[in-house]
Amino acid sequence: MARPLLPLLLLAAGGLWAAERSGSSSAMEELATEKEAEESHRQDSVSLLTFILLLTLTILTIWLFKHRRVRFLHETGLAMIYGLIVGVILRYGTPSTSGHDKPFSCSQEDRPFTTLLVNVSGKFFEYTLKGEISPGKIHNVEQNDMLRKVTFDPEVFFNILLPPIIFHAGYSLKKRHFFRNLGSILAYAFLGTAVSCFIIGNLMYGVVKLMKLVGQLSDKFYYTDCLLFGAIISATDPVTVLAIFNELHADVDLYALLFGESVLNDAVAIVLSSSIVAYQPTGENTHAFDAAAFFKSVGVFLGIFSGSFMMGAVTGVVTALVTKFTKLHCFPLLETALFFLMSWSTFLLAEACGFTGVVAVLFCGITQAHYTYNNLSVESRSRTKQLFEVLHFLAENFIFSYMGLALFTFQKHIFSPVFIIGAFIAIFLGRAAHIYPLSFLLNLGRRHKISWNFQHMMMFSGLRGAMAFALAIRDTATYSHQMMFSTTLLIVFFTVWIVGGGTTPMLSWLNIRVGVDPDQDPPPTNDSFQVLQGDGPDSERRNRTKQESAWLFRLWYSFDHNYLKPILTHSGPPLTTTLPSWCGLIARCLTSPQVYDNQEQLREEDSDFILNDGDLTVTYGDTTITANGSSGPHTATTSLDGRRTKSSSEEALERDLGAADHEVTSRGTRLVFPLEDNA
Amino acid sequence: MARPLLPLLLLAAGGLWAAERSGSSSAMEELATEKEAEESHRQDSVSLLTFILLLTLTILTIWLFKHRRVRFLHETGLAMIYGLIVGVILRYGTPSTSGHDKPFSCSQEDRPFTTLLVNVSGKFFEYTLKGEISPGKIHNVEQNDMLRKVTFDPEVFFNILLPPIIFHAGYSLKKRHFFRNLGSILAYAFLGTAVSCFIIGNLMYGVVKLMKLVGQLSDKFYYTDCLLFGAIISATDPVTVLAIFNELHADVDLYALLFGESVLNDAVAIVLSSSIVAYQPTGENTHAFDAAAFFKSVGVFLGIFSGSFMMGAVTGVVTALVTKFTKLHCFPLLETALFFLMSWSTFLLAEACGFTGVVAVLFCGITQAHYTYNNLSVESRSRTKQLFEVLHFLAENFIFSYMGLALFTFQKHIFSPVFIIGAFIAIFLGRAAHIYPLSFLLNLGRRHKISWNFQHMMMFSGLRGAMAFALAIRDTATYSHQMMFSTTLLIVFFTVWIVGGGTTPMLSWLNIRVGVDPDQDPPPTNDSFQVLQGDGPDSERRNRTKQESAWLFRLWYSFDHNYLKPILTHSGPPLTTTLPSWCGLIARCLTSPQVYDNQEQLREEDSDFILNDGDLTVTYGDTTITANGSSGPHTATTSLDGRRTKSSSEEALERDLGAADHEVTSRGTRLVFPLEDNA
Repeated sequence: MARPLLPLLLLAAGGLWAAERSGSSSAMEELATEKEAEESHRQDSVSLLTFILLLTLTILTIWLFKHRRVRFLHETGLAMIYGLIVGVILRYGTPSTSGHDKPFSCSQEDRPFTTLLVNVSGKFFEYTLKGEISPGKIHNVEQNDMLRKVTFDPEVFFNILLPPIIFHAGYSLKKRHFFRNLGSILAYAFLGTAVSCFIIGNLMYGVVKLMKLVGQLSDKFYYTDCLLFGAIISATDPVTVLAIFNELHADVDLYALLFGESVLNDAVAIVLSSSIVAYQPTGENTHAFDAAAFFKSVGVFLGIFSGSFMMGAVTGVVTALVTKFTKLHCFPLLETALFFLMSWSTFLLAEACGFTGVVAVLFCGITQAHYTYNNLSVESRSRTKQLFEVLHFLAENFIFSYMGLALFTFQKHIFSPVFIIGAFIAIFLGRAAHIYPLSFLLNLGRRHKISWNFQHMMMFSGLRGAMAFALAIRDTATYSHQMMFSTTLLIVFFTVWIVGGGTTPMLSWLNIRVGVDPDQDPPPTNDSFQVLQGDGPDSERRNRTKQESAWLFRLWYSFDHNYLKPILTHSGPPLTTTLPSWCGLIARCLTSPQVYDNQEQLREEDSDFILNDGDLTVTYGDTTITANGSSGPHTATTSLDGRRTKSSSEEALERDLGAADHEVTSRGTRLVFPLEDNA
Repeated sequence: MARPLLPLLLLAAGGLWAAERSGSSSAMEELATEKEAEESHRQDSVSLLTFILLLTLTILTIWLFKHRRVRFLHETGLAMIYGLIVGVILRYGTPSTSGHDKPFSCSQEDRPFTTLLVNVSGKFFEYTLKGEISPGKIHNVEQNDMLRKVTFDPEVFFNILLPPIIFHAGYSLKKRHFFRNLGSILAYAFLGTAVSCFIIGNLMYGVVKLMKLVGQLSDKFYYTDCLLFGAIISATDPVTVLAIFNELHADVDLYALLFGESVLNDAVAIVLSSSIVAYQPTGENTHAFDAAAFFKSVGVFLGIFSGSFMMGAVTGVVTALVTKFTKLHCFPLLETALFFLMSWSTFLLAEACGFTGVVAVLFCGITQAHYTYNNLSVESRSRTKQLFEVLHFLAENFIFSYMGLALFTFQKHIFSPVFIIGAFIAIFLGRAAHIYPLSFLLNLGRRHKISWNFQHMMMFSGLRGAMAFALAIRDTATYSHQMMFSTTLLIVFFTVWIVGGGTTPMLSWLNIRVGVDPDQDPPPTNDSFQVLQGDGPDSERRNRTKQESAWLFRLWYSFDHNYLKPILTHSGPPLTTTLPSWCGLIARCLTSPQVYDNQEQLREEDSDFILNDGDLTVTYGDTTITANGSSGPHTATTSLDGRRTKSSSEEALERDLGAADHEVTSRGTRLVFPLEDNA
């Protein structure tokens, strides 16, 4: 599980700094300490500057690439290349400044303390444990200050860089396509990742045995280590997928499948890897696979997942309520700040409760976009959107630059050719065993099949990225973990460069549409997606949809439309019409006065949920987000039939279907049942 | 000097975390370590959550106060009160969890190492120095984890929270009023702070001697400590001044004086305090005041100051060039990211070179607003403005909440009533000895006098805030420093609450205008400012201005208008007209094509600098920033005289004076010499 670190950082840095400051007391020593602190401070500045200049360079080159329409290398790959170059310079260009203080040794009997008090000529100094050092490397400690400074901590990745990226993904998610494919996404993310982890783990165990036979392995490598490697490397990466596919505007359903899988299987990977680490000791020294522990961890995972989901949704709902019932929108700055803080607190709250922050912040983003966004002032809408866009962009490029840098600055690499080749084969097989059988099974149930082209593309797009990197760098204390980290780094480089650069040719080779406007449904003809549907006439299909498909969504939609939207936002039908009459007082309190005014305007705005069918979709949901920030409520453009009937969820749904049709104009008849104004 | 800390943080946190992870290797121990790490991680999340909830609460109350127009308590004071309450709860409400590992002691002969290697049953572990512990407090180490977690490091303040606040101040600065009063601002900031530091230092030395006589002092307190206290507490705070005065829209000249003084005297305070610390040892144990060292440090300070200024200006210019000569404005996101990174790198670059980041980032902000802003796309203009506004708001409130929290969570407070009362008297006298004599001297030279009301208001507004706090918390290792820190905290509380709450009544009592539109010049009548000027008829004054005053500004203005603006932005006269003809080729390369198109529109846009006179001002400069983000180049509204002469700096200046008059309509004749279109 991820760990928030700011206070840890504060404390730890405080400690380090205090160490530099108050280490000695006589005047000359004070001066020396001061000088040392200043030197260390200067190095800090320089190393941070290195990253900033790297990012600046990356941004300028990204611009050049966009300007010249270069496609063979993606910007994330570019960031990595710059990182690599700077890494080489730092590694071989800077003098190796050996530690100013020679390490001191004294023996302890017990296991190591986390805090150590040392008595130096009558004064007491506090030391904190930093980590174990393998006996061969004692003399390499503090070998190169600069390299150490630029080697950063995975916690920063998990807690500072990741939340804005994932939140932005949720906040700008095309909900329509995500929910349309939810079943498949869950299958790929949960089942697929577990299968892949297991297959990779077992294959790697074979490779390790082979290496032992050949004599390539110089230290222990347990079965659990192999499974851990499987867990680390099984998860495809949302950061990379987002960066590459979003840019290309590839087919929205394919994007939804890939993104949805990757964002959820991160959670799977995190829980799997930490449960593998945690359940290791049950075998006590055998380090064999314990099936009971594994399945127990799957149960735990489901609990964690639903808890995280709830937490994200609840924070979103609370924010929506606060922004609805206070007049905070008169002060857009306060509103934006509140929005930002509430969204970040989701992550921390989830982590504090032992849930997964990534999942919580994703669903928080979705909820915020669905409810809170409607309550924000026009200024805050654009401000929140832009704020998270900038944070997301900076965090993403930082991560990729850093990955490039790490190849040379990380000092404990172990590159084993056999292991690396084995790993590449294993992830290929693992991915294949995950995509094709699962797609076959899913296609049995889906009316809207996943085509072979899509399956091949999903196979090809098994990008490994920042998340695998972060999981691998978390623990590099032992030989096996170091080898796993080095291999993971190479796999990430390979997939980002090859897959990132090859996505465009691959898409065109597989006849998958790019440059799609995500708010537009696919045209009914000339579409690999549509062709496979084998469908009847429009009206028949509509009826079928109404009756069979997505009863769960229908239920949810009516609940959302009639109760949640009116309670949480200024839109939807007035609660006085949807709640039973004995709730009249509460209904009047909770319904905002705008509802009555806006009712006419909101015809198209209150529909977000999607039925599980290719073209019977409700289209407005995304538009509220993709609107360019200056959009207030749109005025309704549907041609009303003039009939006015009583509002009910059933009819509102049908109306939305009609609204969907209105956008995709080449579909059969429209069914519009506008609301009656009961106000 | 401030110290960037991110890499330090990364490293340090990595260390701590690794410590928690890889401390032991046998299975049971691993499990225990894992559990411990999880526990620590949960505490981190909770403590960060505490701050976020505090901020959320503050935001909601700020809204309530604004909504109900409460004025007796300022929002920064409010943030501190919430911090105090949470501090009390943490201090007395949470159980004291004593350290899980009992500290281990072993003796060393030499001075303490920063790194320690410890041999535990054959395995080596690395420890880092955390700091000295006074002998009486050995058993209090790790007394309460939670309190330690929320106690954060001054480095975070200096390097993460401060830059956005100061940059935002520079970026949104009303340059007109700042430059109009530049001489006085420099005098107050440099001379005044040094005088105040010296007076407070000496008075406090008296207080300390008194305390020794009375027997209130239990440990050493040197003369240099007193001077350090003077340096820490002399600087008025830009954060607080910005927060309170900007909100009230108090008189712009008064605001310029107070803000200018406070933002520059921070640099003075930082350099003074670090030079006092550094020059301490020359006396070797006597700790007496060394005049030579002090004056040498003043020389060093001037070097540092001008270096920082240059650095800020250069980064701004580079950003302007990049945004002008690349078509980055087609990709607003890239543009904003670049802008953000370049601005932040200024701070780091200055720190890495041994300059003062605060000053550098301030002038970087001013340069960015003056040049780069004009090159940005419309979207980036609003985006950068809003981004820094949000960051500034969050950072500011975080700082004040934290100050409240620190009163109870900091564990080494020493409150000495005599010292505290002495300090309050000393800062009062120091401020008086700084404001009144200096104002008298300045008024000898200023045509545009600083009225008594203004002097009283400046005396009253000697706010001490976040900067004093950060300087004081930097070193709390010794008895004297702990006492200084506690006293500083109380002074900050007092000034923020009393001065913050009392500013509105004080302003009205002193007849100083509030609610002034900063872009509007004061009306010629009914103004405390204007009344004191003793001026002749308008035309005479204008001529006098033209001849006597501000020849330096005139020179700078013409240089800026004719060369810098055309080179760095898309505005100003074409270089082909201002450069000698033999530079034709370069001039054509450097002038952007828009210049010829925009020339007509830019009549009012290219004037930013101000002559040192009350009403002969050039008004456009601020508008580019205060424009609400959607403003492109304004169309000229001046009524042109129809005459067209060759462009020269002299005439452009006069034209601008005319433009200024155009806005402040009740002034004499206009002198408009529009540019000739040479394109």
